[in-house]
Amino acid sequence: APPSAGSPSPASVGPSSSDDEMEEAAAETLLRGGDEEGSMRARFEREIRRVQAEVCAALEAVEEVAGAGAGGRFREDSWTRPGGGGGGISRVMQGGAVFEKAAVSVSVVYGVMPPDAYRAARPDAAAAAAGGGGGGGVGEKAGPVPFFAAGVSSVIHPRNPFAPTLHFNYRYFETEAPKDAPGAPRQWWFGGGTDLTPSYIIEEDINHFHSVQKQACDKFDPTFYPRFKKWCDDYFYIKHRGERRGVGGIFFDDLNDYDQETLLNFATDSVIPAYIPIIERRKDTPFTEEHKAWQQLRRGRYVEFNLVYDRGTTFGLKTGGRIESILVSLPLTARWEYDHVIFEMP
Amino acid sequence: APPSAGSPSPASVGPSSSDDEMEEAAAETLLRGGDEEGSMRARFEREIRRVQAEVCAALEAVEEVAGAGAGGRFREDSWTRPGGGGGGISRVMQGGAVFEKAAVSVSVVYGVMPPDAYRAARPDAAAAAAGGGGGGGVGEKAGPVPFFAAGVSSVIHPRNPFAPTLHFNYRYFETEAPKDAPGAPRQWWFGGGTDLTPSYIIEEDINHFHSVQKQACDKFDPTFYPRFKKWCDDYFYIKHRGERRGVGGIFFDDLNDYDQETLLNFATDSVIPAYIPIIERRKDTPFTEEHKAWQQLRRGRYVEFNLVYDRGTTFGLKTGGRIESILVSLPLTARWEYDHVIFEMP
Repeated sequence: APPSAGSPSPASVGPSSSDDEMEEAAAETLLRGGDEEGSMRARFEREIRRVQAEVCAALEAVEEVAGAGAGGRFREDSWTRPGGGGGGISRVMQGGAVFEKAAVSVSVVYGVMPPDAYRAARPDAAAAAAGGGGGGGVGEKAGPVPFFAAGVSSVIHPRNPFAPTLHFNYRYFETEAPKDAPGAPRQWWFGGGTDLTPSYIIEEDINHFHSVQKQACDKFDPTFYPRFKKWCDDYFYIKHRGERRGVGGIFFDDLNDYDQETLLNFATDSVIPAYIPIIERRKDTPFTEEHKAWQQLRRGRYVEFNLVYDRGTTFGLKTGGRIESILVSLPLTARWEYDHVIFEMP
Repeated sequence: APPSAGSPSPASVGPSSSDDEMEEAAAETLLRGGDEEGSMRARFEREIRRVQAEVCAALEAVEEVAGAGAGGRFREDSWTRPGGGGGGISRVMQGGAVFEKAAVSVSVVYGVMPPDAYRAARPDAAAAAAGGGGGGGVGEKAGPVPFFAAGVSSVIHPRNPFAPTLHFNYRYFETEAPKDAPGAPRQWWFGGGTDLTPSYIIEEDINHFHSVQKQACDKFDPTFYPRFKKWCDDYFYIKHRGERRGVGGIFFDDLNDYDQETLLNFATDSVIPAYIPIIERRKDTPFTEEHKAWQQLRRGRYVEFNLVYDRGTTFGLKTGGRIESILVSLPLTARWEYDHVIFEMP
């Protein structure tokens, strides 16, 4: 299955930079007053804030061992949307001893999806809302669709060229009935994934990473890992280069064929055990200027993927999301050489 | 007038990397056998190859004074399209003493434009081909349109943070009659422009650059400079940042309301006098690490514009052009910091 076109990353549908209000400290909840304590919205918000806290703590622990000082600690920016709920908390580390740039962000969005985005995301529901899809096309009569989205997303770029970049994103969507089709069913789905982008292929690390992802998937359903691994390979593809961005991992969207309870924390706990052991092994590997230059060229590819193809980024740029939050995924530095020739390392 | 959506840069509609044949040396002409010696196609090819030679010579002369050696000379890559004419010549300097990365490329393309691209590029001609535009929409019956495109394009990134980046591109298009509407008129137009992107605003330099552009325009038509300056400002706009890419220059497209003779070398001779005096003044300006870091951040913006908005680049990436030629416009290195705060320089 090709990746769905329907679920932009919540981090990127966040507040527009002109509207948002920066806060002194993160609010206890980013939800609107009407959302109940025990609702899936509330429980998923707690889940993503727990993941944010745990991943940041794990990275800071690595920095503390490395004696990084202030550069190795996360700085937090919080914002809320005036009059309506929703907001975000970005935690960014820039200039650690081990991590050059790392961001772990949560956000909650109450928005309205244009009808065509809804049709792309939920073709079956759109057809139902349009009364079965006869006549002038599936769901074309449905109006804008109010939605709720919450997610955690992260990109971690280490300094050492032998230590890989990590990306993960876990999100939950709910739509209300389209405004012109109040009888349509309410929809919900989960999306997300974790993937690894090394500059140098070290099989031990890649095997470890994939085996942790597989274990996390297999606990739920033995079909998950092969499906979500392929989806990841298909999604993180730099078409104009004919290259994948990294060595994959898992990627999924539109996941709603289990009960919400089961899916609430699917795969989020695999992030730390999949990544931190690799960092521990590679953070102090000696390297030369040539290794660093190669890492920089690979980071150029990362920039190309994110600016040209990544759905969350391109959607966010088009819709006026908070630019600093959207582009925090880009590496600190990158490099483009004309017609670079690869020489075998001795 | 908003920029036309119709004229991708010929450099980017060049050969697909799998089809093209690299040549030992540039062919005497990139044209097909059938195109005559005195035709506008032939004369424009000579014009852009002259511009390429002169700009490369001017930059190499700067490098020679700086004692750059081999790093300060252009390397040439030539290719032709098997069986059909068309091809390109890229000249790239990477690692000069003054210029970090500079590329000046010419290319000639014989291609076929999809009907909707033709309608976007030439609405009047498409209407004529459809017999006046009655009934089912303007020009919707026209088939694919064979076209000829030739152009020179260049991006020059100097090392010194006080020396600005230059971009220019001059191109000529011809379309034949749409295949399903042989009676439609043959169309031609010129497009192009030259624009400057400094990291630091130095008024003397910007005034010099614009005054040379204005002089070049005024020789043809006093309305050109104000129109083409505004078009440039509108085009080189990084929407998600609310910033222009640089300080402008001129940009034009669809230019066909003069005789071809007049337009053949419009503005191409202004490149060297507009740019080289600025380089001479700024190439040895002392700078600090902070100046360099700021330049790198500005280069990040250059990457953002080119990968997200530039029509030639995005079109080239989508249509499988030669990647090394398309992305040679990117700077050697770039930088992205989260939430960078600008301090006033003392």
